[in-house]
This record gives sequence, structure tokens and C-alpha cells, in this order.
Amino acid sequence: MKTSIATVSISGDLPEKLDAIAKAGFGGVEIFENDFLAFDANPRDVGRMVRDHGLAITLFQPFRDFEGMPEPHRSRAFDRAERKFDVMQELGTDIVLVCSNVSPIALGGLDRAADDFRELGERAKKRGLRVGYEALAWGRHINDHRDAWEIVRRADHTNVGLILDSFHTLARKIDVNSIRSIPKEKILIVQLADAPLIDMDLLYWSRHYRNMPGEGDLPVVDFMRAVAATGYDGFLSLEIFNDQFRGGSPRSIALDGHRSLIYLGDQIQRLEPEVAMTLPRMPDRIQVDGVAFVEFSASEEEAEDLGGLLRALGFQVAGQHKTKLVTLYRQGGINLVINTEHEGFAHSSYLVHGTSAYAIGLEVDEAKATAERARALMAEPFEQTVGPGELTIPAIRGVGGGIIYFIDQKSDLKNIWEIEFNIIAGGEPWDGVGLRRVDHVAQTMKYDEMLTWVLFYTSIFKTHKTPMVDIVDPAGIVRSQVIENDDGRFRLTLNGAENRTTLAGHFITENFGSGVQHLAFETNDIFATASALHENGFTPLQISSNYYDDLEARFGLDIELSDRLRSANILYDRDENGEYFQLYSPNYGEGFFFEIVQRNGYRGYGASNSIFRIAAQKRHLRPKGMPRV
Amino acid sequence: MKTSIATVSISGDLPEKLDAIAKAGFGGVEIFENDFLAFDANPRDVGRMVRDHGLAITLFQPFRDFEGMPEPHRSRAFDRAERKFDVMQELGTDIVLVCSNVSPIALGGLDRAADDFRELGERAKKRGLRVGYEALAWGRHINDHRDAWEIVRRADHTNVGLILDSFHTLARKIDVNSIRSIPKEKILIVQLADAPLIDMDLLYWSRHYRNMPGEGDLPVVDFMRAVAATGYDGFLSLEIFNDQFRGGSPRSIALDGHRSLIYLGDQIQRLEPEVAMTLPRMPDRIQVDGVAFVEFSASEEEAEDLGGLLRALGFQVAGQHKTKLVTLYRQGGINLVINTEHEGFAHSSYLVHGTSAYAIGLEVDEAKATAERARALMAEPFEQTVGPGELTIPAIRGVGGGIIYFIDQKSDLKNIWEIEFNIIAGGEPWDGVGLRRVDHVAQTMKYDEMLTWVLFYTSIFKTHKTPMVDIVDPAGIVRSQVIENDDGRFRLTLNGAENRTTLAGHFITENFGSGVQHLAFETNDIFATASALHENGFTPLQISSNYYDDLEARFGLDIELSDRLRSANILYDRDENGEYFQLYSPNYGEGFFFEIVQRNGYRGYGASNSIFRIAAQKRHLRPKGMPRV
Repeated sequence: MKTSIATVSISGDLPEKLDAIAKAGFGGVEIFENDFLAFDANPRDVGRMVRDHGLAITLFQPFRDFEGMPEPHRSRAFDRAERKFDVMQELGTDIVLVCSNVSPIALGGLDRAADDFRELGERAKKRGLRVGYEALAWGRHINDHRDAWEIVRRADHTNVGLILDSFHTLARKIDVNSIRSIPKEKILIVQLADAPLIDMDLLYWSRHYRNMPGEGDLPVVDFMRAVAATGYDGFLSLEIFNDQFRGGSPRSIALDGHRSLIYLGDQIQRLEPEVAMTLPRMPDRIQVDGVAFVEFSASEEEAEDLGGLLRALGFQVAGQHKTKLVTLYRQGGINLVINTEHEGFAHSSYLVHGTSAYAIGLEVDEAKATAERARALMAEPFEQTVGPGELTIPAIRGVGGGIIYFIDQKSDLKNIWEIEFNIIAGGEPWDGVGLRRVDHVAQTMKYDEMLTWVLFYTSIFKTHKTPMVDIVDPAGIVRSQVIENDDGRFRLTLNGAENRTTLAGHFITENFGSGVQHLAFETNDIFATASALHENGFTPLQISSNYYDDLEARFGLDIELSDRLRSANILYDRDENGEYFQLYSPNYGEGFFFEIVQRNGYRGYGASNSIFRIAAQKRHLRPKGMPRV
Repeated sequence: MKTSIATVSISGDLPEKLDAIAKAGFGGVEIFENDFLAFDANPRDVGRMVRDHGLAITLFQPFRDFEGMPEPHRSRAFDRAERKFDVMQELGTDIVLVCSNVSPIALGGLDRAADDFRELGERAKKRGLRVGYEALAWGRHINDHRDAWEIVRRADHTNVGLILDSFHTLARKIDVNSIRSIPKEKILIVQLADAPLIDMDLLYWSRHYRNMPGEGDLPVVDFMRAVAATGYDGFLSLEIFNDQFRGGSPRSIALDGHRSLIYLGDQIQRLEPEVAMTLPRMPDRIQVDGVAFVEFSASEEEAEDLGGLLRALGFQVAGQHKTKLVTLYRQGGINLVINTEHEGFAHSSYLVHGTSAYAIGLEVDEAKATAERARALMAEPFEQTVGPGELTIPAIRGVGGGIIYFIDQKSDLKNIWEIEFNIIAGGEPWDGVGLRRVDHVAQTMKYDEMLTWVLFYTSIFKTHKTPMVDIVDPAGIVRSQVIENDDGRFRLTLNGAENRTTLAGHFITENFGSGVQHLAFETNDIFATASALHENGFTPLQISSNYYDDLEARFGLDIELSDRLRSANILYDRDENGEYFQLYSPNYGEGFFFEIVQRNGYRGYGASNSIFRIAAQKRHLRPKGMPRV
């Protein structure tokens, strides 16, 4: 699969961009003219620099306002083209992208435009160059790839072809099947971009909101299936205008881009087996059956505190690692591990982030296959020296630097606890306060990095993302998006913080990076759990009484239920599938906390309750006296 | 004039919001329900807290999905209303805002809705409360204030009235004159909000992009004139949903809000003299005739460097302050002052920001009247001890903390240079390299603070703002907006940085705050100026040669002109009014620089050249060897 990306898609000056693009594994790069013009080296040297990075220049762009111009503008446009042809020859690229004319003085007419392209093709031919025509979604007369194709067809010149761009086609909701009848040799290049579905002015949307295929909501896969059906096997090239990407890390954004193309190619070759994507086969997206364990790194002193909190939450010490300072806590199907080793990755993670849930273990069908897919999608493998008698657990680095381990029931890994730990008390099941499994893992990151996480999880695992919702923190909006699988056994909530003063932003600042901010455990009977917790001396997060008054009014709750919720500090929500109950721990350290949920068919995450939960947490973080009146 | 703001408009918990709202001078506050629910005190105590801040609760909001519901939802809605009436009575507010129903199960029909409101009015009456109905722009059946008014009219109940909101009316482009025939006693409250003109989904636009009247592009003044024509003299209340405001400083955003209402009231009482706005009269917006001077604070050593640069730029030492370490540099009509005093504001500014253009003097018709208007609009007056023989110059603090002085020709201030300075060489005019006047002052701030600056300048001075444009820095987008007057004698460019790595963001970080990042001087003959500068040993910022190749192609420039531009490192642009030439100094210190422009009728600021200028400046800031190939 031939991959390319336009320089405009990432930040930095030209050498920084090329470096990031090459390191991310792309084969080609589109030179966006301004990136070249702003760089102070002649086109021949720039061309050499690109090739020295192992990259092909897939095209030079954009050439604007060309076709259908009245004289004298028409002649000037041809003169301008000749100047750009000079540059292209020096750069060493043979395709120029001509986007459809937006000038108010442009004349319409397919034949007029076709005549212009035929002449431009003739001029290009003399230099061994080719002209690609792309319909902008907001072009003055041509804003549909079907019309652009008709112009190319009528131009009927060997050196004139079509350029397709998923954004322009999908933004206008043009039937992608119209692509299937275009001869593949007339498609010079295919550009790919996705975008979130927000109804707005097309130009504004395109300039600010584009993102990588799979990061947005457009049916880019359908578009690509239609392209693949033509037999097209040229470059797939990303052209992404995005305000966050322009200010982001070039390395990270370039890596996202290449991952998005590999994932897209993988989907196409599964859906269209007869199409050759020339992409190495990899295991299909991985079904996750649950969270096998969560591992904390901590100092010995903090491990005492954390262990105390876990015991109050009903956990039992179930085992000690045979050779390491690692303790296993268990309740129901939940395994929590506290690592206080003074060496190894857990320790170095502790030194940077303090006590944190730095690793999660996922239950999958085949652990090795999972790691294989993750590596094919450019995840970084994680390996650490294994002691005598220990198992090698397949693992990768997560986006934020934490570790994701894979556990299965088909290998020795199914006995990992018995193999590596001295299990206490015969390993009898322990019900504790009724917590049964991990309902969801909540990770917090900077908002600008959120799409990286979304793509990472959805490309490796058989999951989908839900629409982004706004969480109202008194200090600003936090964007929240859920990654989950269909059976609800694997659920992640991602929270993107835009500033440091929200609870989420505070967590990132104090923990020196993104990571797991809270764990939600499932119970079948939240009132029984709450009362058992009370007996354990556990004090839940205190919720404002006003919240319960409103709850009664909003849902028409009967007073008895409302009073039980109120006295136990349980939050409540309801959707068309059922009811939801939430109980929170106070914050542990700088913003980490636990949640206990009961979902009677409910599919959501209680987003409308978050403002009350956050307000309560902020009161807890910085206790105040009476309101400052 | 009675002013109010909804708690949802600013950040913080309830006490923080109330504190900021009271300090900004509002008389009332709308309690947004979630702000109350999230706060852990009973409604009676909350009501007392609000009143202890000297604030009235102008209304309680929102009450949603009320009118036109089928049973049993209708009965439940009434039950819900009774619960909210309980809360309102405890809070101590008599108006509830009912927004038009968005529920998919709501039934249409004006009479059905009117019946519901009549019954609700009857229930409210028993408690001494009133019900205000507002048409949401995206209401299911009612999305137009004219329809909402028809329902209120048919409900025909003393305790039911209308609530108008400028956003909902203007977003749908409803004729505001339809407001003029509504009886003022039926308008319970008027909400005001502005927004930038971006074509997008109404709900998304409303939830994220609203801003203060005057900060956006909607004809809020026309809306308010129509309201004023009814004789309405109740609260003008801001209801602003804005992502930046939610994460911003509550003090600063509340101050902007109050300023926006004073400015709006000022405009209305000028346009409709027969309307009583009960607002103190103030001088009209101030015409600025130019920049009288710019003052730098510097250490003695840095003053040497800066002075050297100024001399290279053709400035002459024209005078020394009679009693202070202050030097006057002059060229044409430009006065630059370098202050190296070890006491006073200049020095304390130097200690914080280093060498910087911390003060500007503006030429106005009447300096005292200017300061009076600025104070009426809540600008902070600036006063400093005046030495013997010195003049008191009326002055205010700018948004970023810098000083704005006002100079006129009607008072002693016209002779300020002769009075306070020993003028050297008889004060003969000095042409230098041909710089004649300050063309524009460029100020840099965080993007989130940009609207504060826009409102500050446009409300005090007779200026307008131009549309925001995106400046492409290799490290991210910088938003740029121009404040200028009609004759072009007063021009400011505001640059809002979103991250620290852009040139603008770097400047804010290194200078510990926003401020003047560059000064642009005007010449009548840029080539003569460039050649005189060359003779002075001045080296301009070096522009990429590729830029000039493109310039020839883009504008069809003749080679002779292009070569002159290229050899002098002059940037070029053209609009329908004329040509523009730009020459830049290298950076002085951490990002400050000078620009020299010639505008032959051209009205813009060369935005399309900025990417090339910034790339050149970044090369200059951190010199690199050959590209990393």
C-alpha cells in the first residue's frame, strides 16, 4: 500500500515535517506550496532533501483558479502554470493538483473547462508532467467529483487525470458508487480525510475540522471501497487541515496518519477480499472480553494507604508475588495489583507519575495475536526482563506511555496468578461488598491528544466510539468520548481537558501526564454495596442535597427511592434501556478516584450527573468553610 | 440601566461567580439551575448569599419541555413546575424562564400551548410568581419570538409574559421590528448575546460560540433599539454560552459583560434620544487621530542596544527629559521614548516584562473627555506622581496592563515635549530614512483573551473590527483581528496565540504577558527607505527567495520590480484598492520587531505574507545550519 501525506497536515518547518513523515513510515509526501515557499532553499535542494528522507513527492499543490477564466486572466493562468511547472521539475514531482475554480469571474461550462485542461495537459506533456483535477466542495461551478470527471473525460488527454478527495465527496453526501465506473488509470491520486459530523459551512468545516480516516464520522470506508473497486493502486494520501494538528506534535500526528491508513487498508481488504491492497495481513480487530487486572505503581508508604482504601472498598489481599514486591487484591472478578518494586518499569513510572494505575491487563482470545495486530498498527511493543518462573505477557505501550498487557485462556497466561503468586487462603472466591468486575476505565488526556487515543483503541480493538459530549467542570468544558464494544464488556471513557484548572486538567498537571484517572466497578445491588461499604468505614463522596430535590422533580422518583439515594450519596440516571446508579469514592491523591455503578440495562455513563460529581470532588479537593458571602 | 448576567456565562463555583458578578457592577443575576444544584447549600441560604452580594435574582432558568405535552407527561410537567416554584420561593426570585419545548413527543398548536401557560400562570399567581416564555431558535414547534408572543397573548394571564433573547431572534434572521408592537409590560426580561457569523447548526453555534454584545457580528444594536422602542426598562441580562468564557477568568469575563451592556446602552441612547436608558451620559466614542508616541521601558544597557537599532532605523535623539532618565527619539511624525528610570511604573513594568513598549500615547480631540469615557466603560484610570514642571497626562490601563496616554491639541499637552524635555538641535524636523508616522501597533495576547481587547478598544474608541483571519505559524494557527478607524489614522492588529510555540505564543511566554509585539511605521517610498537603511548598516529580515519566484507568478509582476523587492527583502501584496510593501527588522530580544510599510491605497495588513515573515523570523530566532537531511 502506497501511503502519502500533505505537508500542511502537520506542524513544524519543512525539515521537521519531512523528518516526522519519514519516521512514521510514509512512502510519499505532497508538497503544499506555502511550506516550500516559506523554506529558504531552492527547489532542487528541497527535492533532494525529500528524497534523502526516502520519500517520493507525490504531488505539488494547490494550483488554484485555473479553469474557465476569461481573457486576459486565462493567459495569465497558463503563464502561472508554466512557472509552477518549472518548480515541479526542479523539485522532482510530476503531478500538480488543480482544484476547481472559486473565482467570482470564472465562467462555467464543461467544454470550456475541458478545453483549458486539454491545453494544460499538452503543455504538461512537453515536460513529462501530469495535471490532476480535483472538485472542491465549494467550487464556484464544479463542486462534485462527477462533474470534475466529466471535464477530465472530455479533455481526453493522456496527461490529464482526476484527483479524488474523500472529504469533498462525503461532505456533499455524493453517492460514492459513482466512483466505481471511473477508469483507474485516470485517477492520478486519492486524498483521504475524515471529519466530525457538525453541520456547518463547508469551507469552514474543511479548513478547521478535518481529521484522520477513522477519527471522524464520515463514511471514508465506503468511499475507499468504491475507489478500490476501480482497481486503483496508487498513493493514498492524507490531506488534513486541523487546528489542533497544526499546533500538535509532528511525530505523533504523522504516526496517527500512517496508522489511520493501515487501518483503512486492513478494513478494505477484509471487506473486498478480491482487491489487492498490498498490505501485510494481520489478525482482525481484537475482541476484548474484559479487564483482567489493573496494576498500580506505588511507594511502600503509599501502597499502605491505597491498600487501606481497597480494603475499605471490600477488596481482600489474595496473593503475594513469589519474587517481587507485588500484592494482589481481589473482589469478585476484579484483580488489582500494587507494585512497590524498586526496579523495573513500574518503579520508573512511579518516579515520574507518582502512585498511578500505570498498567491494565485485557482479557482477549489470543494474547499473541493481539500484540501482533497492535504492532502492525505501529503500537510500540513493551518488553521487560522476566524473572525465573515468570511468564512473558505480550504487551504494548499505550498512547500516554502506560502499559497494556494481554491475557488469554489459551496459553499458560490463564494460570498467571497461580504461577507467579503465592495465593493466600486457597484462592476462594471473595464477594467483598459485591463488586463484580471493572465496568469501565476512565483515562484523562489533553484534549488535543484525544483523537490519537480514539484511533489507537478503535483500530486495534473491536470497539466503536460514541459521540463526544461536553462535561461541565466549574473551571471549563471537558470533552468526553467513550470507546466500547458491543457487549459492554470492554468500556473506556476518554476525557480531554482543555485547561489546567478543570479536575481533569489538574490530574494531568499533577501526575505529569495523561493516564487512568478513575476505575468504575460494577455491582448488582448498589444499595447493598453502599451499606456494606458503610460498615467498612468507607465514606463516599458527598453529593449536594439540591441534586436529589431536582432528581425527584425530573424523574418523578418516589420519595422512598429518592431518600435512599440521598442518604447513600448515590447518583441516578435513566435512559430508554434502563436505570443507572453511581457511587463515588473521594479523591485519592491528586484526582484519582473509584466509582461503583449498577446498570440495569442502561447503556450510558451518567454524563448529565458529571457536573454534580465534579463540583463535589472540587469541594473535597480544597475544603472551604461557608460560602464567601 | 438594570443589568444582569446568567451564572452559566462565567467560570467558577457559585460563590466565585457571584463574587465576580457583583464586583463587575451588575445589579442582578440569573440563577442557572445546574449552578445551584451543584452547590451544597439550601435554596434559602443561596438566596441570602446572592442578596448579600447586593444582587437581585432576576430569574431562575431553564424550565424545559413544558408546553404542549400529551398526558401523562403534561401532568408530570406541572408537578415538576410546582417543585421548581418551591425552590424559587426559597431562593427569592419571582420569574421562571420556560424555554420552548424541544421534546419529540410535544404536540403543536398555539391554543394548546396557550392553555398550558394559562394554567401555569394561575398556579404561579397563587405563589406570587411569574412565568416567562422564550422561543428557542431550535424549538420543536415554537422557534420564533413572534409565535411565542402569540401564545403569551392568547394565554392572556397577568402572570405570564414573554422573554426575548437576541441570539434566538437574530440567529434566525427574524425581523426585529416585530418586537416594537409588543406591550412592554408583557416583556418580563430581555436576554442579550452576540455571536460570530459562522454558518453552522444553530444549537451547536449557540452552545459554544455566543459572546458579549459587540464582540460578535450580530445586529444586537438593532435588536435593542426595537426593544427600547417598546418602552421596556427592565433588566438587560446576558446569557452567554462560550467555551472560552467557561474556562476563563470569572472577573475578567464578568467585567467584559458589564462593559458590553454599558456600551450597548450608550449606543441606544444616542440612536434613540427619546428613549430613557437611565444610563449616565458620557462622551461619544473617541476619534483617534494617530499614535502620538510609544514609550519603552528598558535597563540602561538595553536602552543602548535599542537606541542603536532606532538610529539604524533613521531615528535621531531629539531630546532628554528635564528631570528623568528618559530619551526622546524622533523621525517624521514619530516619537519614541525610552525610559530607564529606576522608579515608577516604567521600572516596575521593566522588572516584570523586560524591555518592552509598555505605553502608547494616542492623539485625540480632548484628552480629559477620552479618559472620562474610558472610565465610564470601566477602564482602570492610571495615575502616577507627577514631578515639578511635569504635566498630568490623562491615562488608563490597557487590557494587558500596559498604559494608554491621551494627548490633545486643546490643552498644555500639545507642548508636552517642549515642557518636559530639553529639545536638542532646536527641534528641527528630521526625515531620517523617510519614516513618517506609526501605521499600526500590533499587540499579542492569548487567544482566549482576544475578545476582551476587541471590546475594550471598540467601545472606547470610534473604531471597527475586521473579520478574524488565520495566520499560519509553523507551530500552529494564530488568530488575527484588526481594530481600525475609518480614516486609517488609528490601526491596531491583535494577534491571539493558542499555544506557546508559535512566534506570538513565544512572545507572551518570554515577556510574561501580552503586549505590543511590533510597531509598523509608514513610508512614502519604501525603496528609498530601504536604501537609506542599507547605508545606515541596517540588515532587514531575510525572506526566502522562493517567495519572490511565486510573487512573479501570482501577480504577474515584471521582473524588474520583483528583483528590486527580492534584493531589498520587501514583501508585496495587492488588493482592489492598491499595492502594499512590507519590510521587517530582525527580532529584537524575545520576539519584538519593527515593520516598515508603504500602502498605495491598500487597506489590509498583508495577512497572506505572514507565513513567510514568520518562517523567516523563526529562522532568525534559532539559526540552523543546513536542513537536517
